[in-house]
Amino acid sequence: MAAKCVLVVHGCNLNLLGTREPEIYGTETLDDINGEIAALAEELGLEVSFFQSNEEGAVIDAIQRARGNADGILINPAGWTTTSVGILDAIKASGLPAVEVHLSNIHAREEFRRNSLIASATIGQIAGFGAQSYLLALRGLAAHLGVEERA
Amino acid sequence: MAAKCVLVVHGCNLNLLGTREPEIYGTETLDDINGEIAALAEELGLEVSFFQSNEEGAVIDAIQRARGNADGILINPAGWTTTSVGILDAIKASGLPAVEVHLSNIHAREEFRRNSLIASATIGQIAGFGAQSYLLALRGLAAHLGVEERA
Amino acid sequence: MAAKCVLVVHGCNLNLLGTREPEIYGTETLDDINGEIAALAEELGLEVSFFQSNEEGAVIDAIQRARGNADGILINPAGWTTTSVGILDAIKASGLPAVEVHLSNIHAREEFRRNSLIASATIGQIAGFGAQSYLLALRGLAAHLGVEERA
Amino acid sequence: MAAKCVLVVHGCNLNLLGTREPEIYGTETLDDINGEIAALAEELGLEVSFFQSNEEGAVIDAIQRARGNADGILINPAGWTTTSVGILDAIKASGLPAVEVHLSNIHAREEFRRNSLIASATIGQIAGFGAQSYLLALRGLAAHLGVEERA
Amino acid sequence: MAAKCVLVVHGCNLNLLGTREPEIYGTETLDDINGEIAALAEELGLEVSFFQSNEEGAVIDAIQRARGNADGILINPAGWTTTSVGILDAIKASGLPAVEVHLSNIHAREEFRRNSLIASATIGQIAGFGAQSYLLALRGLAAHLGVEERA
Amino acid sequence: MAAKCVLVVHGCNLNLLGTREPEIYGTETLDDINGEIAALAEELGLEVSFFQSNEEGAVIDAIQRARGNADGILINPAGWTTTSVGILDAIKASGLPAVEVHLSNIHAREEFRRNSLIASATIGQIAGFGAQSYLLALRGLAAHLGVEERA
Amino acid sequence: MAAKCVLVVHGCNLNLLGTREPEIYGTETLDDINGEIAALAEELGLEVSFFQSNEEGAVIDAIQRARGNADGILINPAGWTTTSVGILDAIKASGLPAVEVHLSNIHAREEFRRNSLIASATIGQIAGFGAQSYLLALRGLAAHLGVEERA
Amino acid sequence: MAAKCVLVVHGCNLNLLGTREPEIYGTETLDDINGEIAALAEELGLEVSFFQSNEEGAVIDAIQRARGNADGILINPAGWTTTSVGILDAIKASGLPAVEVHLSNIHAREEFRRNSLIASATIGQIAGFGAQSYLLALRGLAAHLGVEERA
Amino acid sequence: MAAKCVLVVHGCNLNLLGTREPEIYGTETLDDINGEIAALAEELGLEVSFFQSNEEGAVIDAIQRARGNADGILINPAGWTTTSVGILDAIKASGLPAVEVHLSNIHAREEFRRNSLIASATIGQIAGFGAQSYLLALRGLAAHLGVEERA
Amino acid sequence: MAAKCVLVVHGCNLNLLGTREPEIYGTETLDDINGEIAALAEELGLEVSFFQSNEEGAVIDAIQRARGNADGILINPAGWTTTSVGILDAIKASGLPAVEVHLSNIHAREEFRRNSLIASATIGQIAGFGAQSYLLALRGLAAHLGVEERA
Amino acid sequence: MAAKCVLVVHGCNLNLLGTREPEIYGTETLDDINGEIAALAEELGLEVSFFQSNEEGAVIDAIQRARGNADGILINPAGWTTTSVGILDAIKASGLPAVEVHLSNIHAREEFRRNSLIASATIGQIAGFGAQSYLLALRGLAAHLGVEERA
Amino acid sequence: MAAKCVLVVHGCNLNLLGTREPEIYGTETLDDINGEIAALAEELGLEVSFFQSNEEGAVIDAIQRARGNADGILINPAGWTTTSVGILDAIKASGLPAVEVHLSNIHAREEFRRNSLIASATIGQIAGFGAQSYLLALRGLAAHLGVEERA
Repeated sequence: MAAKCVLVVHGCNLNLLGTREPEIYGTETLDDINGEIAALAEELGLEVSFFQSNEEGAVIDAIQRARGNADGILINPAGWTTTSVGILDAIKASGLPAVEVHLSNIHAREEFRRNSLIASATIGQIAGFGAQSYLLALRGLAAHLGVEERA
Repeated sequence: MAAKCVLVVHGCNLNLLGTREPEIYGTETLDDINGEIAALAEELGLEVSFFQSNEEGAVIDAIQRARGNADGILINPAGWTTTSVGILDAIKASGLPAVEVHLSNIHAREEFRRNSLIASATIGQIAGFGAQSYLLALRGLAAHLGVEERA
Repeated sequence: MAAKCVLVVHGCNLNLLGTREPEIYGTETLDDINGEIAALAEELGLEVSFFQSNEEGAVIDAIQRARGNADGILINPAGWTTTSVGILDAIKASGLPAVEVHLSNIHAREEFRRNSLIASATIGQIAGFGAQSYLLALRGLAAHLGVEERA
Repeated sequence: MAAKCVLVVHGCNLNLLGTREPEIYGTETLDDINGEIAALAEELGLEVSFFQSNEEGAVIDAIQRARGNADGILINPAGWTTTSVGILDAIKASGLPAVEVHLSNIHAREEFRRNSLIASATIGQIAGFGAQSYLLALRGLAAHLGVEERA
Repeated sequence: MAAKCVLVVHGCNLNLLGTREPEIYGTETLDDINGEIAALAEELGLEVSFFQSNEEGAVIDAIQRARGNADGILINPAGWTTTSVGILDAIKASGLPAVEVHLSNIHAREEFRRNSLIASATIGQIAGFGAQSYLLALRGLAAHLGVEERA
Repeated sequence: MAAKCVLVVHGCNLNLLGTREPEIYGTETLDDINGEIAALAEELGLEVSFFQSNEEGAVIDAIQRARGNADGILINPAGWTTTSVGILDAIKASGLPAVEVHLSNIHAREEFRRNSLIASATIGQIAGFGAQSYLLALRGLAAHLGVEERA
Repeated sequence: MAAKCVLVVHGCNLNLLGTREPEIYGTETLDDINGEIAALAEELGLEVSFFQSNEEGAVIDAIQRARGNADGILINPAGWTTTSVGILDAIKASGLPAVEVHLSNIHAREEFRRNSLIASATIGQIAGFGAQSYLLALRGLAAHLGVEERA
Repeated sequence: MAAKCVLVVHGCNLNLLGTREPEIYGTETLDDINGEIAALAEELGLEVSFFQSNEEGAVIDAIQRARGNADGILINPAGWTTTSVGILDAIKASGLPAVEVHLSNIHAREEFRRNSLIASATIGQIAGFGAQSYLLALRGLAAHLGVEERA
Repeated sequence: MAAKCVLVVHGCNLNLLGTREPEIYGTETLDDINGEIAALAEELGLEVSFFQSNEEGAVIDAIQRARGNADGILINPAGWTTTSVGILDAIKASGLPAVEVHLSNIHAREEFRRNSLIASATIGQIAGFGAQSYLLALRGLAAHLGVEERA
Repeated sequence: MAAKCVLVVHGCNLNLLGTREPEIYGTETLDDINGEIAALAEELGLEVSFFQSNEEGAVIDAIQRARGNADGILINPAGWTTTSVGILDAIKASGLPAVEVHLSNIHAREEFRRNSLIASATIGQIAGFGAQSYLLALRGLAAHLGVEERA
Repeated sequence: MAAKCVLVVHGCNLNLLGTREPEIYGTETLDDINGEIAALAEELGLEVSFFQSNEEGAVIDAIQRARGNADGILINPAGWTTTSVGILDAIKASGLPAVEVHLSNIHAREEFRRNSLIASATIGQIAGFGAQSYLLALRGLAAHLGVEERA
Repeated sequence: MAAKCVLVVHGCNLNLLGTREPEIYGTETLDDINGEIAALAEELGLEVSFFQSNEEGAVIDAIQRARGNADGILINPAGWTTTSVGILDAIKASGLPAVEVHLSNIHAREEFRRNSLIASATIGQIAGFGAQSYLLALRGLAAHLGVEERA
């Protein structure tokens, strides 16, 4: 059986990781993180592809293309978490299982970062573990896809 | 060096797992889940102890006792997630790193289940992966404690 | 056929009935009320058991135990009416038909007493008839259980 | 002593009972229900008269006429529950004890059906027992009027 | 096959059309508009009947009578748009497809005119085209009834 | 020059004046009040006609008829003060100057009685002077109509 | 019997009357208005004194002094209508009957001008009649003081 | 006279029509819908051009370009309905008459989809008729442009 | 005359005093504080008893028992300040004068700690003086009980 | 060492104490209270000065002057408690420790009296003990200033 | 042509500048700032006068006097920014162009400092540049008065 | 020393300046304004570069690139002022001082334009001076960068 594919979507400003407010977001770059995700994916027998953009439209396009080309989505919606109906609708339209990832614990931050608009289209949410949030999310998604024993 | 210890706290009604609304909460019992947690803990070189109660006061007591006896806390606050200032204060008073766990994706459920009062005292939150939420949380906490390579 | 059983749950401070603010809650004691309930139950061919506690956890436990041991629940959630997610979840988990009872007409009192959090797990609500609220509720539940001709 | 009289007021759309959304409101017609009410009233030694209208003004008129002609009111305010200051004022002006009846458990339905504007003028509220709500309410009112032993 | 029938309901104050605030509501009278509706209905092979009242109760009655006598409803709820639970319930009870019509673009007017309470019982809403709103709505309803090719 | 005409509109439940909650609304009957209004009108050289109904629709009709038949409106909207968009629209459509009258000081009563929906269509509001509120309002309207020296 | 005395209090910016935004507040000066008030007072057999200040503290002082020196208060609280707890408390402390006056119909203006904080300490409110508001208010107060036949 | 031109703007995710949640949005593709629009436009003697993008910025650009190149706009703002101040400002800046179109009845869906931010810049809104919403909107706009007899 | 008795109730987590977040709550232990209270009580001629629990139910029980056994209550409701209807009702039911104590100035902390639900059942509130808050409260209560000259 | 000085600030309307609503504020005059404060201050080895005004500006001036002339502030902000940003800023600017005093238990009164705007600049708040509130506050402040053993 | 005059109004507590919370408000005194304003005014060919008070009423008086004596107003409303309807009305009544100045960036501070009540009567607002805010505002006002080339 | 550089960012729809709603936004084009900014920059010894886009993503990219290439940012966020978390985060991530510019006085416009989400990442805000707002902002930023004597 062909390996299952996961699309990893990084929202706006995440291309700056490692330099932007490291006391909140950590010191690893996005490439570092993608490398760790890729390593874990290989270990779990998953294929992964990565997408980052600062444009909501590009993210919507990427999610739309995932349909038929991927089996699941990891998404860190970043600045669009609480505002983008378009990304919400794109995830719903993709019909794919998705996991919402946040580097920081958004539930302990400013009010306007807390109530995810996207949650109604996702399996679950992982927030607060820095770069590790992605890895935990990948494990969660892998289990959902039946790829590995749980966790 | 002695193994690090994690206290796993299950909030009210979680003793019913496996029978209560399985379409939301899954079919595993709390013993099943504790077994899985224990297995992963062993693999990670952690000790774990478990506590469940339907009384907020008993949970507060358990968290207080963790100080000096444990190195971290996994807590599924269940019905107290959005209402218990007492559990929030107990976690803060313990001085221990804590991770908030939810079986279901609370962000996609009723309004009154969404805004965790406890988040301001925790590292992060994992919601929506059923019993696996605990396992992912344990990995997250283990990394925080420096026990394993991330994820 | 064995008689159907009803668990009657009295929430916090109801042990004081008859002495506490009688102008609001009436002059009968809880024992008086339980006696009246028992008499009507006998007339209706029902068994009843009673439970009162000032601890939310004890009430959750009692409701959990009702599963398999009772056929329905009468509950006066008292001070927990608008705040206890735990009791809500316990009733849902019990899978039993439940009726919500209030001595006073909570809809004509302070704002914070009005919006029952528990209502989404119950058949119906009876409020304002003093001790008689329980008797009316028992009749309502009995009809729901098919025990008597309506009313 | 002359029998006490109760005016039973059915609000808008209740003339459709038995056909309208039977999964919510049940299959009995308004005549069926009135028949059951009449039977119980006879048993309790009460007189009853019935009034239904889809016009708020007609209901206000009917409640006003009750003053001096009736000893109590049963009212299902239906669509006017949360909006009619006029019916609230009419009940207050009548000076009669009134009981608020709802077929469905309005506290478990849409937000806009829940907060009764009329409650501040009534003894109590019974909601969720279908047609039986009226019968329980009649018993509650009868006890209030001193007509029967409680329940 | 007999022609399908549409009941056109005009809410309060619409009898004044042509004279009332013409800068908002236009200069045609209600008869003018009904004439245009009738002409289009004939073109579409539909029968239409008209009802206007300034009484909510009369409108509820008219909608109730439509059941079995009409195949669909056009309704401009006017002043009852955001307040009438009774009209909402009547439309639901009728079981008929309904279209909500507004002469002005209520979404660009005062806050209290915007959030239709009736929308949850209708196919759709057309607002802002003056008298033409009715004609567009009739076409929309006709298509829904399978009477014409779309639009 | 012909005398100017004023339509005096009394909203729902005002037919009960003198008997209804006299501690709030005073002991005069509606006829008493109308008599006082008529006497003052005569003194001011105004004609008055009176209208009372418990039906919102009848009130809307009366206001509509005033157009061309009256020069101004005194209205005590009573229970419809904060809810009737229909009466608001009728007053606007009439194009007549209107004065809002309240017997009690609504600004010192329950929250739901305070924010007049009708105010945006009136010259002014007089509240709290009991039956005298009408007389003061008539003077205010008379001055607005140029009928008398002010006050 | 000595004539009763009324203190007329004009709030901030009312010293500008006649020049300030005349399309809202009219063209009469405060002296003009005081003259009209004095004339009516004489006609009614009342004594009046006047006070205007742009300082809340001075107004509070004036109201405090009224105790024992006046029999009633007319007050146009102007910019302090919705914000001054101090004026509210001063009126209450004076123990005098007070009437609230507004030149414009505050209920049809900006949200922040509508909800009088002072209303709970007054007999009633008159708004929207320009300078005449004071005259109507004086008549209302006079009747309350038993000085004249009503209106 | 040259034919009038209409720009039809489809917001984010509408390129997926026909495959995305067909139970809500129908089974026609965007090309199908554009074909129907084009056919009706031809019938009405209008020219149409189409634009779809998942990027807000591209939509703003397209609306800006319409100035001078088109006579009116049909826009389904989709996911930007309640959030895009930029699209609102672009429509206002274009100075063109615009009609807001929604496939589903947004007024009967989630709270966050209901209150159009764009409405203050449009003639009217049509919602709930699936693909036909566009055709009705085109008729509405055509009448506004004086292109056809109404409807 | 026998000495008057005061029950001192410490809410959840207060058993940790001295160790828990000392920068907010100070460095004295609960025993230290109780010692200071006892010393002052002796000086004032009062008897005191102490109760601390992390269980709301136990606190309710303790307050209930105070009836007949104590003459007044000092209570630091801690984490239950803004949520416990049960403790509010218990204090009301006790019929005893109660004073609410807070170590920190809750009015300068997080929103969710500020609005005491219990205040409606107490004489007064003292917040922000650390352990001294209890001593001041005891003096306040003593004066209320007539035990000492004020302060 | 020179005695420490405390400025006691009484807000608007407090000059009326003893006569104003004695059922809420007690029967002592402000001079009585100041006398008691002075007596306790002497006992504690403190100097006190007093200031009362009905003008916010005068109070701000007095607080500004305290800088360098006093060591602490007792303030009963009265009617400015929830509205005066100016007094808040003056206290902050003074750099002095301040205690907020209220005669009545503001937390059990009208909503608009409860949320102190000044709390963020004070050590603590004492409310509900009548004139004794000042004495308790003085003790609290004295302890803060290191002047006496606690309480 | 005579030089144009600008009245510079400093609100409450600004007399403390240079000493009060310098980390927020800077280290220059009000005299320093006035000196800088005067210097720039001279450079721009403007006359300036200065006014500071801690009393709202004095500020209202000063603004009223500006009419006819000044050509524009710079105002730092300080603690009255969000609460003073009186200052708002005074500016409107003056008919003069006004600019609102804030030393700190109020939009990044506490919620209660952000929404200027005064903005509806001003040309614009400058916030966050410390003492320079006044200088920028003066340039903005000068350009508005046609005194200088822009900026 | 090399000249300091400022990036000037114009948000969505600002490319239309001069033609779009000139009564609100003025008649200068964006090129005109950029010319004025460049002239002032030269006078101040600053370099400037300009960026305008209708795409949020492009703006985020531009702000990200500024890091290391510019010393400060002037930004008119236009339609994104109250909604773009992405732009907020980009400014924070850039670590550069930024000034927020608005042509119109947003605080006097629609509610949805007032509360800047971006303010927490900027030095200050200038609003309401039309094109001059940019020039004032440049002066403010220049002073912050130490480039010129203030103002």
